[in-house]
Amino acid sequence: MILSRTAATFPPPVMEARRWLDGVTHPADRPLMNVSQAAPVDPPPQALRQAMADAALTHDDAHLYGPVLGMQTLREELASRTAAHYGGTVTADQVGITSGCNQAFAAAIAMLCGEGDEVILPTPWYFNHKMWLDMSGVQSVALPVEADMLPDPDRAAALITDRTRAIALVTPNNPTGAEYPDSLVQALFDLARSRGIALILDETYRDFDSRSGPPHALFQDPDWHDTLIHLYSFSKAYRLTGHRVGALVTSAARLAEVEKFLDTVAICPGQLGQHAALWGLQNLSQWLAGERDEILNRRAAITENLPRLQEHGWQLLGLGGYFAYMKHPFEISSAELAPQMVRDAGILCLPGTMFYPDGDARGAAQLRIAFANLDAAGIAQLFDRLAALPRG
Amino acid sequence: MILSRTAATFPPPVMEARRWLDGVTHPADRPLMNVSQAAPVDPPPQALRQAMADAALTHDDAHLYGPVLGMQTLREELASRTAAHYGGTVTADQVGITSGCNQAFAAAIAMLCGEGDEVILPTPWYFNHKMWLDMSGVQSVALPVEADMLPDPDRAAALITDRTRAIALVTPNNPTGAEYPDSLVQALFDLARSRGIALILDETYRDFDSRSGPPHALFQDPDWHDTLIHLYSFSKAYRLTGHRVGALVTSAARLAEVEKFLDTVAICPGQLGQHAALWGLQNLSQWLAGERDEILNRRAAITENLPRLQEHGWQLLGLGGYFAYMKHPFEISSAELAPQMVRDAGILCLPGTMFYPDGDARGAAQLRIAFANLDAAGIAQLFDRLAALPRG
Repeated sequence: MILSRTAATFPPPVMEARRWLDGVTHPADRPLMNVSQAAPVDPPPQALRQAMADAALTHDDAHLYGPVLGMQTLREELASRTAAHYGGTVTADQVGITSGCNQAFAAAIAMLCGEGDEVILPTPWYFNHKMWLDMSGVQSVALPVEADMLPDPDRAAALITDRTRAIALVTPNNPTGAEYPDSLVQALFDLARSRGIALILDETYRDFDSRSGPPHALFQDPDWHDTLIHLYSFSKAYRLTGHRVGALVTSAARLAEVEKFLDTVAICPGQLGQHAALWGLQNLSQWLAGERDEILNRRAAITENLPRLQEHGWQLLGLGGYFAYMKHPFEISSAELAPQMVRDAGILCLPGTMFYPDGDARGAAQLRIAFANLDAAGIAQLFDRLAALPRG
Repeated sequence: MILSRTAATFPPPVMEARRWLDGVTHPADRPLMNVSQAAPVDPPPQALRQAMADAALTHDDAHLYGPVLGMQTLREELASRTAAHYGGTVTADQVGITSGCNQAFAAAIAMLCGEGDEVILPTPWYFNHKMWLDMSGVQSVALPVEADMLPDPDRAAALITDRTRAIALVTPNNPTGAEYPDSLVQALFDLARSRGIALILDETYRDFDSRSGPPHALFQDPDWHDTLIHLYSFSKAYRLTGHRVGALVTSAARLAEVEKFLDTVAICPGQLGQHAALWGLQNLSQWLAGERDEILNRRAAITENLPRLQEHGWQLLGLGGYFAYMKHPFEISSAELAPQMVRDAGILCLPGTMFYPDGDARGAAQLRIAFANLDAAGIAQLFDRLAALPRG
């Protein structure tokens, strides 16, 4: 008997990690530090909440079905903001709004791939991408990153077959934090174009990139939409995780295909969340700049506190966005270490093994620390706890 | 080259129908009557809107990620309401909340089926079900309904193969309005159980069923969850279409599989919409009873006005929920007639051809009238316009 779509993949890793908390009590002087999930833990700014409340009370449309590909005003606003951010040309009919960025990835794959097709993912990979490919009957082709946590375009080229439909990148990366250099993104775009496949570029953490200016020049290519499928999320920027608003930017022709998928799994994105995203784009640029500054301060605290950990044999493999990706000094696999850390140190983080194919040994030495919800003092305390972990 | 998932299906019919409106102007004394979409056109009651505004302002959780399978309080409330409505036993861990009822169907199929599996759908079918099956690589096996718009269990039994994973029903039906008799639902459930397949029962229009009491006794079977996958929508009951809240009720073991799918296409249902659904369940029973009365009044207006249309050769094939399913008296196919009706009579409705497989001749004579948004006077006017349509 053939496996069902869901039987072909694994349970959500974040849910599995949450179960490690069951039955563990944390002393009052050492509360749990949860660095497992890459999501804001605070609600959006009060003015945005007020704008949503006003929309609920006064905009009838906010309660009724909207267009499958999203509110026209939001599509227009994101198109012009994207064009400005990347210095290129993007029109509203090249923007589709989705119920979160995971759904944008799912829609892109449904639009590109059929049973048995292939998509190249750098490893470590974002596990939700892997899960969706499994459930779509699409082969995930692992492209191991180099020591700098970046994929090599020549190795990518060697993996392309006549079944390959896309290369999918996340930058700044989840889980490694790596900010892909402009030249690397360009090289992978050029490779994809030359081989007639798509480049999926998930920029969920874009607003927290440490570099100023556009992170790549792809949108400046007049024919960017032939090759590029750009994914974005409003969840991190405006703390709207509970409202599920993301976006997919590509050619209008591709969006006509995406519309079929979204019509069946969503009908339309939540209308109130779209109002919130639009209000955020129009009113929260300054606030978001402050949020970015704070994330960059926290990132700096990782670097400052690092030498102490290095003395205990830890290494920092990647840093950026919401993440520090670390190599631990212990003999045991991270798959065993991570649940132990909940009990022994009150730290919940995800083991590297969750970001690799079964049997890939690299993840056993790695841990993902989603540091964004810890302030500088919290990061110092986290590193104290890590440094104090008993050897072996 | 293999077709992509989206290339394997057709564009959303509702979007296609909307395009028939392009460039057509409607005289001031004959405005457009849109009976194409089965959705409320009015916003929810003001008290519910106020509850949502309050939640936006005061519940931090309403803005942040929630559990993949939905808010625990909503799962509990729907479990107890479902148990009470059907006179059976339903627990919170047998309820999953989804981003709308279409997504509940998609999740059920992903959990049940792999490439090349089969699902039996009575025809005329709900086209979004057909689209999702196409995109999942699942064969839709058509089960033509009888003259009374109801499927015959013996004909269903004859269609089951070793690749069949489910029979999927909609009651009250979309598009025909047929309210499936208790005995028929039971017979199809018994058939599914005896053959080791699932029965998917989409009861989106349940709250407008003309019969009092539970519409079937399936939940009274202590082992209902082995076979039944019950789908529900909050969209119609509380006018929450823009917030995307539906539900899937089945075994906890099946929901653990469903969780994988929902984690990748949604992460969680919109939180504010879930607050609204919970508030509705707890506070709007009386209001909903009034809504049902009004829909039943409108349904009665269809019956009252019918003889005039029958004189012109029309037949009523099915009536219930939001729908009147009609046979028109013209020589041309409904696929041609429906766009003509926009121009000639200012009526937008969906042709029967949209609810059948390609090449099935029955739909050519049929039209779906989603009457729920017309009051009794509007229905009389609609029938005036239909009666005045030029012959041939």
